[in-house]
Amino acid sequence: MSRSSCLVFLVLLSLSWVPQAPAATPLSPSSEECLDCHGSVHAGIVADWKRSRHAAITPKAAMQVEGLGLKLSSKQVPEALLNTSVGCAECHTLRPEAHADSFEHNGYKIHTVVSPDDCAVCHAVEREQYAANIMSAAHGNLADNALYNDLERTILGTAEIQQNRAHFTPPDAATRADGCYYCHGTRLVLAGVEKRATDVGELEFPVIKGWPNQGVGRVNLDGSRGACTSCHTRHHFSIEMARKPYTCKECHAGPDVPAYKVYETSKHGNLFAAMGSQWNYDHVPWTVGEDFGAPTCAACHISLVVTGDGAVLGRRTHQMSDRLPQRIFGLIYAHSQPKSPNTTLIRNKGGLPLPTDLDGTPAAGFLVDAKEAATRRDTMRSTCRACHGTAWVRGHFERLDGVVAATNAQVRGATRIMQTIWEKGYAQGPGSGGSPFDEAIERRWSDAWLMYANCIRFSSAMAGGGDYGVFQEGRYHLNQAIMEMGDWLKAQDGAGTEKR
Amino acid sequence: MSRSSCLVFLVLLSLSWVPQAPAATPLSPSSEECLDCHGSVHAGIVADWKRSRHAAITPKAAMQVEGLGLKLSSKQVPEALLNTSVGCAECHTLRPEAHADSFEHNGYKIHTVVSPDDCAVCHAVEREQYAANIMSAAHGNLADNALYNDLERTILGTAEIQQNRAHFTPPDAATRADGCYYCHGTRLVLAGVEKRATDVGELEFPVIKGWPNQGVGRVNLDGSRGACTSCHTRHHFSIEMARKPYTCKECHAGPDVPAYKVYETSKHGNLFAAMGSQWNYDHVPWTVGEDFGAPTCAACHISLVVTGDGAVLGRRTHQMSDRLPQRIFGLIYAHSQPKSPNTTLIRNKGGLPLPTDLDGTPAAGFLVDAKEAATRRDTMRSTCRACHGTAWVRGHFERLDGVVAATNAQVRGATRIMQTIWEKGYAQGPGSGGSPFDEAIERRWSDAWLMYANCIRFSSAMAGGGDYGVFQEGRYHLNQAIMEMGDWLKAQDGAGTEKR
Amino acid sequence: MSRSSCLVFLVLLSLSWVPQAPAATPLSPSSEECLDCHGSVHAGIVADWKRSRHAAITPKAAMQVEGLGLKLSSKQVPEALLNTSVGCAECHTLRPEAHADSFEHNGYKIHTVVSPDDCAVCHAVEREQYAANIMSAAHGNLADNALYNDLERTILGTAEIQQNRAHFTPPDAATRADGCYYCHGTRLVLAGVEKRATDVGELEFPVIKGWPNQGVGRVNLDGSRGACTSCHTRHHFSIEMARKPYTCKECHAGPDVPAYKVYETSKHGNLFAAMGSQWNYDHVPWTVGEDFGAPTCAACHISLVVTGDGAVLGRRTHQMSDRLPQRIFGLIYAHSQPKSPNTTLIRNKGGLPLPTDLDGTPAAGFLVDAKEAATRRDTMRSTCRACHGTAWVRGHFERLDGVVAATNAQVRGATRIMQTIWEKGYAQGPGSGGSPFDEAIERRWSDAWLMYANCIRFSSAMAGGGDYGVFQEGRYHLNQAIMEMGDWLKAQDGAGTEKR
Repeated sequence: MSRSSCLVFLVLLSLSWVPQAPAATPLSPSSEECLDCHGSVHAGIVADWKRSRHAAITPKAAMQVEGLGLKLSSKQVPEALLNTSVGCAECHTLRPEAHADSFEHNGYKIHTVVSPDDCAVCHAVEREQYAANIMSAAHGNLADNALYNDLERTILGTAEIQQNRAHFTPPDAATRADGCYYCHGTRLVLAGVEKRATDVGELEFPVIKGWPNQGVGRVNLDGSRGACTSCHTRHHFSIEMARKPYTCKECHAGPDVPAYKVYETSKHGNLFAAMGSQWNYDHVPWTVGEDFGAPTCAACHISLVVTGDGAVLGRRTHQMSDRLPQRIFGLIYAHSQPKSPNTTLIRNKGGLPLPTDLDGTPAAGFLVDAKEAATRRDTMRSTCRACHGTAWVRGHFERLDGVVAATNAQVRGATRIMQTIWEKGYAQGPGSGGSPFDEAIERRWSDAWLMYANCIRFSSAMAGGGDYGVFQEGRYHLNQAIMEMGDWLKAQDGAGTEKR
Repeated sequence: MSRSSCLVFLVLLSLSWVPQAPAATPLSPSSEECLDCHGSVHAGIVADWKRSRHAAITPKAAMQVEGLGLKLSSKQVPEALLNTSVGCAECHTLRPEAHADSFEHNGYKIHTVVSPDDCAVCHAVEREQYAANIMSAAHGNLADNALYNDLERTILGTAEIQQNRAHFTPPDAATRADGCYYCHGTRLVLAGVEKRATDVGELEFPVIKGWPNQGVGRVNLDGSRGACTSCHTRHHFSIEMARKPYTCKECHAGPDVPAYKVYETSKHGNLFAAMGSQWNYDHVPWTVGEDFGAPTCAACHISLVVTGDGAVLGRRTHQMSDRLPQRIFGLIYAHSQPKSPNTTLIRNKGGLPLPTDLDGTPAAGFLVDAKEAATRRDTMRSTCRACHGTAWVRGHFERLDGVVAATNAQVRGATRIMQTIWEKGYAQGPGSGGSPFDEAIERRWSDAWLMYANCIRFSSAMAGGGDYGVFQEGRYHLNQAIMEMGDWLKAQDGAGTEKR
Repeated sequence: MSRSSCLVFLVLLSLSWVPQAPAATPLSPSSEECLDCHGSVHAGIVADWKRSRHAAITPKAAMQVEGLGLKLSSKQVPEALLNTSVGCAECHTLRPEAHADSFEHNGYKIHTVVSPDDCAVCHAVEREQYAANIMSAAHGNLADNALYNDLERTILGTAEIQQNRAHFTPPDAATRADGCYYCHGTRLVLAGVEKRATDVGELEFPVIKGWPNQGVGRVNLDGSRGACTSCHTRHHFSIEMARKPYTCKECHAGPDVPAYKVYETSKHGNLFAAMGSQWNYDHVPWTVGEDFGAPTCAACHISLVVTGDGAVLGRRTHQMSDRLPQRIFGLIYAHSQPKSPNTTLIRNKGGLPLPTDLDGTPAAGFLVDAKEAATRRDTMRSTCRACHGTAWVRGHFERLDGVVAATNAQVRGATRIMQTIWEKGYAQGPGSGGSPFDEAIERRWSDAWLMYANCIRFSSAMAGGGDYGVFQEGRYHLNQAIMEMGDWLKAQDGAGTEKR
């Protein structure tokens, strides 16, 4: 290759990414008007959109795709949307009456926050599935559960020691939006309107509390819940991006839910990191072996996965729990998936809004039964078997069952010490009207289940290697927490401390 | 570039990855028969293999490569294997009498678990080197060392507090396989046979305990140890993948052995992450500067590395310690490499199976001597010098020597406190027949050497930046552990606690 | 695509990276002489350089670039350098009288350590900006601040418990260079000369203490401070590499300054990881939307960023604080940026070299005022607005303000407990002449601000997701530290411990 032809080649390579006007796909006059200003003012947004499938195809053409490649799932799409690309105006002026933040803008009724109910105009099936996804209820499941709220208060609040006890000033809106609700989703509220000077004179805009936010359970200004942009990042809405594990990592990174960290340390994550630049992330359906050589998060949990000869291994779902028998994180014990995405309905025997009792007994009436759990596990297994023999897959899941049982037993041991501490009055627990989360020793207890038992289970579930299950916030630390709790109890016994 | 030619270009790009039947390389009739069913049933495996060098070349052709490019190291290969690709049957029917899991399957004697001794038919030299690699003994080195077993018990077991002390229910097989032995390798045991319904009727298969596993020291069903697939991931066996650091990360990620984390924070890791997509990972030999611009794990520890004018900087080795004078992790003190991969043979002065005494004195008779250590360091250095001047390289290793000495001294301080605690009877140590690992304060001691001193040394050894040596489980935490141990001892002294 | 044309294509692809002699750019005779030997001896260095822009262009040609693409910022360049590539000799023989390590080598006066003042011959503006960057003062800001030195001593020193207190043997040079000064930069000192046997006979070389080092505040042998190679890695000096976040990660990875970790968990980091392989990192200026789809560290803090229609969103700066109103890490409280890069000048009301009092009151006279802070924030905001609406950007920064205020309040609570502990004599603090850093309970206090409050603020500043602000060394742990400090104080009160 001569130097000049090499140069030409590299220039062409780089050009291939430069956004090009989608010549064949007509833009609506409204969207054209948007682009007149916003193409300059928000160059990044527009460049992003130009690279999107929304810019390159009309809904009419998208509806004509036959078979498994169909992405536009609504049976009907309003006539007015059919024959242009899906541009600015198509989404931001949709259903104006439904959106509390709709405002007059150059003759249009614009709303800032596009919601799942807007997307559902073309993607009805996905929106339906997502509404059954526990993620869509993530705001209320935290904000409307008194017990979780108490935990939230002791994490996000400002702790101060007064008379030997921690007192918590409740967190303000900034801290809540920046903390738990970054992922759980804020509740958006229209707080008024304001005038702002712009390049084209003074204009009026809505003022929205809780904005910006892209949390999975965001409560929108049309009452809908969720943000499709959590995963399908605005304004490219890229299926490639949603299929890569980095998207899931935004909310599944910390020790409370270390899915990404475990993934990247697993053989699957190794394959993705080492060979994934050669894979195709855009094909629908997604062909195992041909398009990709190892699963990303999406392959196991969401995507429509097929084999080269067309067999469907997993149907596309936006209800992630479709392939999950158990919830292995976030709560004191691993337990079967809840029946309803609204987990505030759950009550354990003690009347607490928890899916298990403190001894681990499941609140069975609110959780899927063994048969449903088995069905979900089978759905997951059929994807595994594209690359693994039956004995391998069975061995893997048997091991996971063992690990879930073992970690539940370990947490039971930790909880018994905690209960002894409460009973002896060394700390004030729920039995005496106290919070189970507002003392230092209680936090060592929550370390045990919220951090370490979680990590161990994720590591097992994803064949994630020994480190995350052992030395990286795993078994080493779980037993350390239990031993320290034992030491603390012994010291209190020795000190003759009495009930405060 | 017009849109259409751009499209053509991208299609071609993506096509270039689609697995293609290796037209020129004949498949054996046996393997062809395998593919008839398994091409559908295990589409992912087959697609993976089709992309491999094993699918693209016959052993005969591979043996004719001259010079440093030779990959097939056996001098002789059985006639029957010479003239077809290395397909399913070639490996999974090899040496059937040697494998306890061989079973009748459509007229063939198949074994599920292909072992290093199978691979050695073509790759005898690598298998030989690997047998001298401490990794190959990783199962027994842990399972057959009473002291390490005690640590394992207190990590993997289920801790419960009874009469103020932690008691540990021994871990079950699931937890052991999922924990330490995920990396160390399980012992595979044939547990029987079972009948399973398949697409082609009921068939009989072996039942293997400890399966699945790809740990580096797996004890196989033919008695051999190791799993080539730990690094050469099945069924692509990709040299590219083995040379990328993600493979090593599977087992070298946690704070006990943070090689990958330190690497990715180092200048070398930065170069790999930023520029590595432009490198070539397949060339054998591997030419520094031309093929790659900074070392990955493999470049320093394993690969055959040459300069553009053909000088050999490092010969290929599968005995990783060939270039390593010291072991800087996993044990109480850094020490010279053991002579034998079987470390259960080692005894320190006190008769414990440890490479040093509790004061750091090496069990010298079991460790390589200073001359051998110097030779190994020189081997490592010659790779460094491809990109670094002599003064740079010397400065780097002098600094490492200083850091190893300093961390050993720090651990000695921590150990002295621990010994005082044992002597005063505040905890039960080996002197009084107790375990050194089963009390909370003992775990703070093991934090000091198993986590923090480790991290500091890795950070120094790999020029890994300040964070992993200081604030990320480094010196900040090492001194914190020592100060907390001092506080704990002081509190016990104050409490007048007596020997339990 | 046939198999053979596919092969040709792949070979061409790989060839396109092989370093090629830059035919059109003349090499100076001196550099040619260097390459004669070093092309073999240091093949990696030379291959790296051959790929650089320095190898491909003469200063004269670089000076003729018009407009925003100009990279060579000096108005004048010495005649002797104008018409050849920037090779070995051009940098390593520059200003020989200024460098203490200049030595005779084959008739040339060579110096090993090329310094910012060497680079300034062509890049005067960047060198000037960098001298105003607090990073350039990183060595002295640590080494010459008595209080920070005390912290350094308790982190890098060897702690031993004597009479119930930790005593610290001061760290040796190896540990200092390997620890804090890896990033802060060592002070290089010429320690003498030595003779070494080389391939071409015995030669004399300088011996340099503190070498190797590439820390941002390295004190060089010509008296200048900094190392351009910290970010522009030798000898490729790649703008692509400096623009990728991995470079910043080398020093901004740990929990004390978790910028990289937060970034990679943020939506921006997700976009970079998922889509960044399609971006262009070499174009100058850097066009948002066209060249890149989401900011890397450089986009927000350093690079010359423009829109497709040529509007400048951010001018290039090597004084990173140009766009930063506040310092949110490293010290007890977040505070406005210092006026001078030399922070050893700062005194708080109590006379300590700290930018705030222990109650958080800023040492206002040494910090930029509100107006300057607002200007810097506006500079930052203009980059945000390429992709985000005004309300989004405002909402983001309001939230950050709230979080900074909240974390400062939380740290104030922690500090009040610490002060009570000091006042009661349970630990020896600055009031009684003690170190605030050398006891275990004091380290829990520094955990609060040096680790957790830092992480929370970074997470907020970079919209980094909930985990780093909550469960990954965030609010969960900050309140845990405060509760544990409260418990410790209570235990001391209970034990009737008296002033030591």
